[in-house]
Amino acid sequence: MTNRGTLAVVGLGPGAPDQLTPAARAAIAGADVVVGYRAYLELVAPLVAGKKLVAGRMTGELERAREAIAKARAGARVALVSSGDAGVYGMASLVLEVLRDEGWARGETPDLEILPGVTALASCASLAGAPLGHDFCAISLSDLLTPWEVIARRLEAAGAADFVVVLYNPASTRRRRPLEQAHAILARHRRGDTPVAVVTDAYREGQRTVVTTLDRLLAAEIGMTTTVIVGSTRTFAFEGFLVTPRGYAEKYGREGAGLAGEGAP
Amino acid sequence: MTNRGTLAVVGLGPGAPDQLTPAARAAIAGADVVVGYRAYLELVAPLVAGKKLVAGRMTGELERAREAIAKARAGARVALVSSGDAGVYGMASLVLEVLRDEGWARGETPDLEILPGVTALASCASLAGAPLGHDFCAISLSDLLTPWEVIARRLEAAGAADFVVVLYNPASTRRRRPLEQAHAILARHRRGDTPVAVVTDAYREGQRTVVTTLDRLLAAEIGMTTTVIVGSTRTFAFEGFLVTPRGYAEKYGREGAGLAGEGAP
Repeated sequence: MTNRGTLAVVGLGPGAPDQLTPAARAAIAGADVVVGYRAYLELVAPLVAGKKLVAGRMTGELERAREAIAKARAGARVALVSSGDAGVYGMASLVLEVLRDEGWARGETPDLEILPGVTALASCASLAGAPLGHDFCAISLSDLLTPWEVIARRLEAAGAADFVVVLYNPASTRRRRPLEQAHAILARHRRGDTPVAVVTDAYREGQRTVVTTLDRLLAAEIGMTTTVIVGSTRTFAFEGFLVTPRGYAEKYGREGAGLAGEGAP
Repeated sequence: MTNRGTLAVVGLGPGAPDQLTPAARAAIAGADVVVGYRAYLELVAPLVAGKKLVAGRMTGELERAREAIAKARAGARVALVSSGDAGVYGMASLVLEVLRDEGWARGETPDLEILPGVTALASCASLAGAPLGHDFCAISLSDLLTPWEVIARRLEAAGAADFVVVLYNPASTRRRRPLEQAHAILARHRRGDTPVAVVTDAYREGQRTVVTTLDRLLAAEIGMTTTVIVGSTRTFAFEGFLVTPRGYAEKYGREGAGLAGEGAP
C-alpha cells in the first residue's frame, strides 16, 4: 500500500440504493473515510457502516470540502458525497476552488476523481413523465450566494426563450419570496394553464409528485427537497404526466428525419 | 403469471456498465423484449443476451416507440432503452405522445415506468471538472425537428443571461452549420477566452476530454457523440478542468451561509 491519498467526489443520485451507480457505490465502499452532510450519509448507511465518517451541518460545505482534501492529502482514500450529481450545484466545484487556492496541481496528492450521478432534474422528470424532451434550463432559487438580480435575469430569459425551467432549491421554511417572484416572472411569459410538476423526495420515503399548472403553482406544497419543473409552451399534460415533445415540425417530427437523441452515435 | 404487459423506458447512462443504475439494469434483466437503437443495445450486450431484441436504424425512433408499445400491449415485459437519461431528448416523450394518440389511460396495459439515468450533461461535466456548479441550459443544435429560429433565440437568451450552456447534438458529419452559428451567437456574449469543454464518447471506448476556449471551439473535433459545455462569465479553467463556482458574493460564498445544494434536505 502506498500513501497516495485519493479523493472521490461522488454523486449519490436521488437517494434510493437502486439509483446509485455501481461506480459511485464502489468508490464509497473502497473509501477509508466518507465525508458528507449527515442526511446524505444516512441515505447510504449500510454502505458506510464501519468506516470513519465526517458528517456536519448542512451549511458546512466549505469545511467538509477542506476536511475531505486534508484527509486525502494525509494518505486516506476519501469519498465526499453529494446527493444527485456531484457537479450540479454539488460539491465538485467547491473542491476544485479549494484545491486551486491550496496550489494543487494534477498528478499531485490527492488523486482526484469526480463521479457523476442521477441529478434531480432527471430523477424528478422521470416521475413526472417526460417534461425534459426538449431544451431546458436549471435555475437555483437560492439567493444566499447569488444576487437576486442574476436569478431574475435568468428566469426572464428562460421564460422569454421558451425553455422548460427546472427550479432547484425552490423554497425553504424561511425562504419563500424567491419562489413567488419566480412565479410572477414566468407568468408573464407562459399561460396560466402551462403544466407544472412539483416533485418532492424523489426516490425517497414520502415521494410525492404533483402535476399542476402555473396558475396554481403557489398553492402546492414546496420545500427543501422539492424540485419544480415548469413546462414550455409546447409542454402538455396527459394522464397526470408532463410531456414536452421533441419534434416541432409535425406531430412526431418528420418520419425518418431522425430525432437526434441524447448522445446519439 | 398474468398477461399484463409492462413497458419500462430506461436510461442507460453514458454507456459504461458501472454508470448504469441498478434499477435500469434490473428492468433490462427482467424484460422479455429489449427495444433500442443498435448501438445502445451493444452497450448492454451481456445484459440482453438471449432476449428478443428489436434494434433498428438511428432514425427509427417512432417505429421503435410504436413497436415497444405494441409488444407490451400484447403482454410482454418490454424495456425500451435510450442512452443517457430516457427523458432528456430521449424516448420517454415520444412514448407518451404515441400512448396519448392511441387513447391509453393510466391503469391500462401497458404498465408504464420511466427510469432515469446519468444524462450526458452530468457524465460529460464530471470528466471536465465542475462546469455545472451554477445555473445552466441544455440546448440541442439539431435543426431537423426544431426551426433554427427557436434554437437561435435560446442561444441568444442563454448567452445574454450568463447561463453555462450545454450543447447536445452539436454536429454530425453532414451538419456543421448550426455549431458555427451557435458559436457566433455565444461569442457576442462571452469573451474569447471563456473556458469550453468538448467531451466525446464519455465513459466509452475512445473517451476524449478537451478543455479549450470559445475562440478555439471550432478547431476542436466535434461529432455525433460529443457534448460541448460553454462556461459562463464566472467559469474558470484550472489544471485542465472547468470550474463554475457556486458562490457569487465572495470567494466561497459567505462562510456558514449554506450553499443550498442539489436536493438539499
